[in-house]
Amino acid sequence: MRALLFKNGLKLVNDYPKPEPGKGEALVRVKLAGICKTDLEITNGYMGFTGILGHEFCGVIDAVGDSDLASGKGSGESLKPGTRVVGEINCGCGGCSNCLKGLKAHCQRRSTLGISGKDGCLAEYVTLPLDNLYQVPENVSDREAVFVEPLAAAFEITEQIQLKPSAKVAVLGDGRLGILSALVLNLTCADLTLIGKHPEKLEIASGQNVKTVLLQNLEKIQEYDLVVDATGNFNGYRLALDLLKPRGCLVLKSTITGNEKLNLTPLVLREITLVGSRCGPFEPALRALGKRIIGVSPLISAIFKLEQAVEAFAYCKGKSPLKVLIDLN
Amino acid sequence: MRALLFKNGLKLVNDYPKPEPGKGEALVRVKLAGICKTDLEITNGYMGFTGILGHEFCGVIDAVGDSDLASGKGSGESLKPGTRVVGEINCGCGGCSNCLKGLKAHCQRRSTLGISGKDGCLAEYVTLPLDNLYQVPENVSDREAVFVEPLAAAFEITEQIQLKPSAKVAVLGDGRLGILSALVLNLTCADLTLIGKHPEKLEIASGQNVKTVLLQNLEKIQEYDLVVDATGNFNGYRLALDLLKPRGCLVLKSTITGNEKLNLTPLVLREITLVGSRCGPFEPALRALGKRIIGVSPLISAIFKLEQAVEAFAYCKGKSPLKVLIDLN
Repeated sequence: MRALLFKNGLKLVNDYPKPEPGKGEALVRVKLAGICKTDLEITNGYMGFTGILGHEFCGVIDAVGDSDLASGKGSGESLKPGTRVVGEINCGCGGCSNCLKGLKAHCQRRSTLGISGKDGCLAEYVTLPLDNLYQVPENVSDREAVFVEPLAAAFEITEQIQLKPSAKVAVLGDGRLGILSALVLNLTCADLTLIGKHPEKLEIASGQNVKTVLLQNLEKIQEYDLVVDATGNFNGYRLALDLLKPRGCLVLKSTITGNEKLNLTPLVLREITLVGSRCGPFEPALRALGKRIIGVSPLISAIFKLEQAVEAFAYCKGKSPLKVLIDLN
Repeated sequence: MRALLFKNGLKLVNDYPKPEPGKGEALVRVKLAGICKTDLEITNGYMGFTGILGHEFCGVIDAVGDSDLASGKGSGESLKPGTRVVGEINCGCGGCSNCLKGLKAHCQRRSTLGISGKDGCLAEYVTLPLDNLYQVPENVSDREAVFVEPLAAAFEITEQIQLKPSAKVAVLGDGRLGILSALVLNLTCADLTLIGKHPEKLEIASGQNVKTVLLQNLEKIQEYDLVVDATGNFNGYRLALDLLKPRGCLVLKSTITGNEKLNLTPLVLREITLVGSRCGPFEPALRALGKRIIGVSPLISAIFKLEQAVEAFAYCKGKSPLKVLIDLN
């Protein structure tokens, strides 16, 4: 099959072996996939991963490895060939204490689609455990469904913390995760502001009733109950400390390669709570898209064919677009 | 009056003006005071403070500035001259949004006894608002009462987070705050281990049924639900990450001067919650001492007279003792 392979550089290959679904797994024909910042970082050496890239997709089940185990989630019925699906990226071992508590995303022996130990979805076919798959509602398009994985990461914030509707909230960073986090948290009707550097990106959020402000115009007052850092760099941490009120909460969504000189003492003196936040629940993301209360399509910057995937990566690195998709239809 | 002054160096002075209690304040005759690591750091330039050092004390009310306002706390009756008291160190402005919510410790215009904007208690007399004072039960000695301030800081941990009795807990650091935190958290009957480098300090905790382990013998497994860092250095943060299970909680008690290269990404990947924790509630600390369920006297390393206070500071810097007291009786 055709696949975008990262191994001694990034290249499109035409003769990659088509994967076989194991017991309890599905073979999924990929229709549309997204390029994520993590994919770009992997091509810079992050995680030491080699293999097929990609972890955001919408596809159709082509075959099921062991139909007796086909339970699936989110759909209310068994998943079968022909079902349009999206998939959680973490595959747990199934036997450790984290997996037994339902925390497969934290299994120490987990593989992660296109990131660690498992070929990703920038290919014609991909396999995933049926338990990782969720049926996509009919009224959600492929172009919307491909956002479920990052949208779920935004929903993870309110899985972890209670966000009161009366809270004052800042979301830092007008990249894809910042905008999605702002759109999700704005549903609580909290007093939320998305802070970024790019007027054209902020406009995507303001077009959906999110209050936005350019960083250069931001008034730095320590009055925020919650700050979500989705900047992807250490300046987000520092800015958050300029905005949080005593006993406020900082949710860190940014994974940043490398170390930097940081001062943790303000967290102690002001009794700030810092919450690390990663992958999230797919069902609320699918419900939000199905209800049409969050619009993700405006975040699509460009769509490339799989044949142009290498060029698509170059485009991402050069232009810092919001979301670039790879069409495999 | 006699006082230990930090101004162009540390010196004992005999002619410092005796303070006058303002409206709603008490003049307290200091009986016994403690030297804290923060005091030592101030003599190294921390906070840029100059004035009388000291913020841990037990004393007797000598006079009250405005008796109509003499409410006091913790005693169930008005505080009056002759009452033996301990005192909270943060004095809020009384009018800001934090003070109005009862968070005077987080008032941005606060003064802090012997640390910022207010002369401390290493002197014959000190003033504090009556609202900061708590009567000491008769069965609690001066030598125990002087530990109320740091003991309250240990109780702050369970003010901030829910510690389940089934939790696996590590307290890092066998200094004074580490031992007090271990003694307090051990009351929950959680599976708690105090980790330190000094057998003779760990013994003080193990003598009160705290499980202890020397750092060099510690098995680094990521199985702890809660880690409390009271090491006072950045290695505590790093060790905590070696011990916490996914979605675990790290309570930071250490205030560390300066920055250090730190990696925040493990917090995100493993969804760790980090909680900054500072001053705490006096009432539970007084109740714990009154009930005789926490023994603090074994932490006393030495007692100096006020005349020897400069030598006492030198002793603290040289020997790293647990707690050195200054007797003003």
